[in-house]
Amino acid sequence: MSFSFGRLFRISVFGESHGLGVGVVVDGCPAGLNIDESCIQAELDRRKAKNSEASTQRREGDRVRILSGVFNGTTTGSPICMFVFNEDVRSDYYELIRFRPRPGHADYVAHVKYGGFNDFRGGGTFSGRITVGMVAAGAVALKLLSRYGIKVVAHTVNIGGIWAENHELNNVDHLEKLIEVSPVGCADLKASNEMLELIRKASELGETVGGVAEVIAVNVPPGVGEPLFDTLEGDLAKAFFAIPGVKGVEFGVGFKAASMFGSQYNDQFSVINGKVVTNSNNSGGIQGGISNGMPIVCRVAFRPPASIKIPQKTVDLRNYQEVELMLSGRFDTCIIPRALPVLRSMAAVVLTDHLMISQKIPRVLK
Amino acid sequence: MSFSFGRLFRISVFGESHGLGVGVVVDGCPAGLNIDESCIQAELDRRKAKNSEASTQRREGDRVRILSGVFNGTTTGSPICMFVFNEDVRSDYYELIRFRPRPGHADYVAHVKYGGFNDFRGGGTFSGRITVGMVAAGAVALKLLSRYGIKVVAHTVNIGGIWAENHELNNVDHLEKLIEVSPVGCADLKASNEMLELIRKASELGETVGGVAEVIAVNVPPGVGEPLFDTLEGDLAKAFFAIPGVKGVEFGVGFKAASMFGSQYNDQFSVINGKVVTNSNNSGGIQGGISNGMPIVCRVAFRPPASIKIPQKTVDLRNYQEVELMLSGRFDTCIIPRALPVLRSMAAVVLTDHLMISQKIPRVLK
Amino acid sequence: MSFSFGRLFRISVFGESHGLGVGVVVDGCPAGLNIDESCIQAELDRRKAKNSEASTQRREGDRVRILSGVFNGTTTGSPICMFVFNEDVRSDYYELIRFRPRPGHADYVAHVKYGGFNDFRGGGTFSGRITVGMVAAGAVALKLLSRYGIKVVAHTVNIGGIWAENHELNNVDHLEKLIEVSPVGCADLKASNEMLELIRKASELGETVGGVAEVIAVNVPPGVGEPLFDTLEGDLAKAFFAIPGVKGVEFGVGFKAASMFGSQYNDQFSVINGKVVTNSNNSGGIQGGISNGMPIVCRVAFRPPASIKIPQKTVDLRNYQEVELMLSGRFDTCIIPRALPVLRSMAAVVLTDHLMISQKIPRVLK
Amino acid sequence: MSFSFGRLFRISVFGESHGLGVGVVVDGCPAGLNIDESCIQAELDRRKAKNSEASTQRREGDRVRILSGVFNGTTTGSPICMFVFNEDVRSDYYELIRFRPRPGHADYVAHVKYGGFNDFRGGGTFSGRITVGMVAAGAVALKLLSRYGIKVVAHTVNIGGIWAENHELNNVDHLEKLIEVSPVGCADLKASNEMLELIRKASELGETVGGVAEVIAVNVPPGVGEPLFDTLEGDLAKAFFAIPGVKGVEFGVGFKAASMFGSQYNDQFSVINGKVVTNSNNSGGIQGGISNGMPIVCRVAFRPPASIKIPQKTVDLRNYQEVELMLSGRFDTCIIPRALPVLRSMAAVVLTDHLMISQKIPRVLK
Repeated sequence: MSFSFGRLFRISVFGESHGLGVGVVVDGCPAGLNIDESCIQAELDRRKAKNSEASTQRREGDRVRILSGVFNGTTTGSPICMFVFNEDVRSDYYELIRFRPRPGHADYVAHVKYGGFNDFRGGGTFSGRITVGMVAAGAVALKLLSRYGIKVVAHTVNIGGIWAENHELNNVDHLEKLIEVSPVGCADLKASNEMLELIRKASELGETVGGVAEVIAVNVPPGVGEPLFDTLEGDLAKAFFAIPGVKGVEFGVGFKAASMFGSQYNDQFSVINGKVVTNSNNSGGIQGGISNGMPIVCRVAFRPPASIKIPQKTVDLRNYQEVELMLSGRFDTCIIPRALPVLRSMAAVVLTDHLMISQKIPRVLK
Repeated sequence: MSFSFGRLFRISVFGESHGLGVGVVVDGCPAGLNIDESCIQAELDRRKAKNSEASTQRREGDRVRILSGVFNGTTTGSPICMFVFNEDVRSDYYELIRFRPRPGHADYVAHVKYGGFNDFRGGGTFSGRITVGMVAAGAVALKLLSRYGIKVVAHTVNIGGIWAENHELNNVDHLEKLIEVSPVGCADLKASNEMLELIRKASELGETVGGVAEVIAVNVPPGVGEPLFDTLEGDLAKAFFAIPGVKGVEFGVGFKAASMFGSQYNDQFSVINGKVVTNSNNSGGIQGGISNGMPIVCRVAFRPPASIKIPQKTVDLRNYQEVELMLSGRFDTCIIPRALPVLRSMAAVVLTDHLMISQKIPRVLK
Repeated sequence: MSFSFGRLFRISVFGESHGLGVGVVVDGCPAGLNIDESCIQAELDRRKAKNSEASTQRREGDRVRILSGVFNGTTTGSPICMFVFNEDVRSDYYELIRFRPRPGHADYVAHVKYGGFNDFRGGGTFSGRITVGMVAAGAVALKLLSRYGIKVVAHTVNIGGIWAENHELNNVDHLEKLIEVSPVGCADLKASNEMLELIRKASELGETVGGVAEVIAVNVPPGVGEPLFDTLEGDLAKAFFAIPGVKGVEFGVGFKAASMFGSQYNDQFSVINGKVVTNSNNSGGIQGGISNGMPIVCRVAFRPPASIKIPQKTVDLRNYQEVELMLSGRFDTCIIPRALPVLRSMAAVVLTDHLMISQKIPRVLK
Repeated sequence: MSFSFGRLFRISVFGESHGLGVGVVVDGCPAGLNIDESCIQAELDRRKAKNSEASTQRREGDRVRILSGVFNGTTTGSPICMFVFNEDVRSDYYELIRFRPRPGHADYVAHVKYGGFNDFRGGGTFSGRITVGMVAAGAVALKLLSRYGIKVVAHTVNIGGIWAENHELNNVDHLEKLIEVSPVGCADLKASNEMLELIRKASELGETVGGVAEVIAVNVPPGVGEPLFDTLEGDLAKAFFAIPGVKGVEFGVGFKAASMFGSQYNDQFSVINGKVVTNSNNSGGIQGGISNGMPIVCRVAFRPPASIKIPQKTVDLRNYQEVELMLSGRFDTCIIPRALPVLRSMAAVVLTDHLMISQKIPRVLK
């Protein structure tokens, strides 16, 4: 009962890694937005592996089909259902892990929670494939946000411990271009190369690597976010923690704030062009859970993908014997590059929902 | 419309820093739980400043009164309303900052969001005082959890950049005792002393310091958490981000996972006493958003408190002139020690809600 | 977990008949609305028994106190908590019925549902006294609606089978005046007298009588209501069924529509003063769950109050023996007159919530 | 944002009358329930017109496809998406009514609400066709309820003013057989014939007729329903008002209660076979919004279908001129027979959701 997210702009994802396909229902999208399958497809294509060294060799056409909610190229105000059939599915392998949960995966907890009835093939609904629905919904949200000048960008700042140097946050258009040319979505080209090299090495070792992505949203007006509990930070974090592999979320300087004095941390106010701004953005554009008009900045930590080609200890759930497990197959060595459009999408979904609650986006577009 | 949190065990907080008082309604608490004002009071007392050097000199009796939902010392299944009158209120001072938002506080965003109608005295509903309601609700949840052997502990691991050494997570009872004797809630007594010294120095400078707290919950059964979106991580993070000052949340090794290889990160499975366990707990007891039966471990980063006794730049919202602001009054130099019971409370609220959804806690206690 | 109602304008009631008091938290009220205790009190006073023959002799001062959310006479955007202490409470009597559920009351189901932990005194939270919170919340909603020219009226159309003659729905101001002078809230003075006579007779017999009230809302703009499930009809009905004693809800001609042909039922369109109107209002102002701009009209059926002074059969829940029960005390012979402000209030709450969702009421009033 | 219904067992419908198709996502269904396309199909087939005189001549294959959530013939705990492609679609006709709203339909309010962007063909998402999704979801719920001995039956009690005589509510199996043989789903065969005759006559006149259906649920255990607001009556009513054409809902004796004395209305208690029962069932099995263990009985009033073959007045929304509208096409003369499985389905959805909240149905079936 919890595959839905949002209040006024609400998405409901469904599907499994090795079932018929994956999809999403977007309920509450304002009427009058121009969308078609091609603009959804463009966003889904970003999610596909672009570098064979970093990512799974599974090849999906991922052709999206809009099943409802769009009429004459425009949203109607009714729920938009989008579906993508699975194509490149090889399930036989997974019978082997049915009762032998893979360390790091959700196999064990899913087995416990669903009494063994869960679709265990490829992780079933816990697979990263479920993020196809997130990205399809995000494509709608991003299109909507763009009408209000709001842009959301996600980029790689760390892979396997290699940090990107700082970049110009103020210019997201420039940032976007830099990301586009990097095979790992990192704006710092030197770091990008080192990251790629690390991924290669890890892949050779049968290993995987984690990382950190940063999400930036610009032009969000001040006053968005619903304290006390439906804060921008809280809803963004909750949305991000739904993405497989996320283990940490921080805003602005985040954990670094712990080591700062108040006078270093506080963002002081100025007026520029008749607009109240802050001289720094240590808070990541959010105070009291509400946007202050500055760029919203957060970072998301991903653990290394769980599927490694190294023997691991597990337990056979039929007889509680400890056994060794050796996985083979097509795995992502590093998920960050492919996670970027997913992060972007979920951020866009959260912002759209909050902008509707704040009445900054109308129910019918003009 | 968002001062409520939870689905089956739902809390709704209300009140202001300088109004009549603060309170909470707890809706959905199982019938048959023994509670009275003294057990709520005990938890509220933990929230009060115990060290005058770290904390505000504001002195509140914080006498809680149960207005509904308890009959003959037992919960009835009806909403429990609890209220605490404010006592030590001095509001005159705040008129000065009505149109001059304090950097780091929610003054500016509240002014924008509520059109200047917000109760600006002491931050109004954005004040840390709102956490009284969280703690009162948490006291109920903690009492309920204790009946199922579940214990939640929060302790200080970092203040102003000083990290506590590692401790024995396996023994939360021992941990609790260590915390109790430290004036800053830190189990590492050497670090505790350094932290206290730093707080003293910061206070002399008119400064404030941030920090990191860790929350641990033991004996949560496996299978708790509702993917895809209502994950344990997501709901805990959302609950924590509602606490004033929180800027980051991570689970298990958290951001450190970014620098790890898959083989280092994955928690492999063993059987101990006929129970499936993991040999490490890098995931913080949660996979796929669902508890795996191991201790749930997360860390929460707090920014330094916003009120400092150092001149800061702000803007007068009446004429958009930049002005200098110098605050005086009674402030917390470091919020971590007083935040510990709030974190514990919100974690307990989230866990109780999820345990009810998972049907691990019945609607009527026996 | 269900003492809350609404999405953007959300009320949470609490309290018991014989506990400390009853109250409500209103979350999501727009900032900038002028309210004070006197305007809430005025609405609560309407709920009090004005005729001793129809209503309980219990006398409550019902002095409301606003505990939060109002600052300088204006709503702040934070939750508004309102509380009324119980005064005229006599509980001893109720021990007798602790294990002997009164027919028609919720005693039996509450005992089953809450395992006997429920506050059984006077029905506890199932008492009509819980409607104090509904009316206090409704007073806020009604004040808000009045700023947008929206008026909600409730009047008695049937008591004990005596129907009021039709009246002029188009003039709710006139209707309101007629209701005010009738001791039973009925605009048809002849019927009003007969109803009063029937109530007298029933009272002498130790009996109670049921009835039907009609609720009318005028000036609701077209386009309000959220299909498919959050229809205006559905949300109004759900809100009304929360009022103790309600057993039926119908809109427009309601059940009479079953006997009509399509050509008789359909409301055809015209233009009057450049505005689309319908020539009849058989649909009660709602199509497809959405307001069409015509008056919203619905009728609500109440069963006779359950407490009668006539012996009834019940079961002793300690030994499952059938026993006879003879109640004594202070009861309402007919609830309709006192239910009118409750209906009005809940209708106002539903409409306010929907008007906010439809963005017809802003988050901050000007 | 409101095409979803339910809290723990949650359905989200989507689709349009003349789009690609209609469907539903069922989120929160317990794992371990055996379902396949054939058992969903069986329920959908009941919804199809079985009598050409009463119902539309539109012929839909209505072949359902399960897109997710079922693995090896069993529910997995993940969302179940079901989809039915539209086949017999003829849309050209509808261009004529684009700006000329049909009286009684939602055309006008949809145009206002969605700014003219709504899919107006055949009413779009307001069409009765959306109930396909309700019935598919209901098939899952009914299957689940049957495992707990709970049965839900819907039958026709009134068409066009012709009332069926009373029947034996105690024997729903017998009732079901009687309904099955009646072309209008009425257990009283004499009334059934008269109803059919009336439908024939109305059809010849180009007219339509309304009616009343009764829904009965047996073996619902006592204690189900969540006061104060999430009552069984309130949630059932809300669910029913989402079905196109519903204008009234009553429980037990319903509106007749208005004319009864308390002593006539109250259901007194007895013990039969060691079980507490009531001697009558005037309350329809619900007190205080909670089931008492007796059959749940409610009646639902439908207006006559809006599409008639008689000239009607409407307004051209382009120039606000009054015009005459004459519809042609394939319409239902009476919707009651086809509405029965929809009512049954929505009742099953509501009951399943409440049984899960009450923890009477587990998260994993054994």
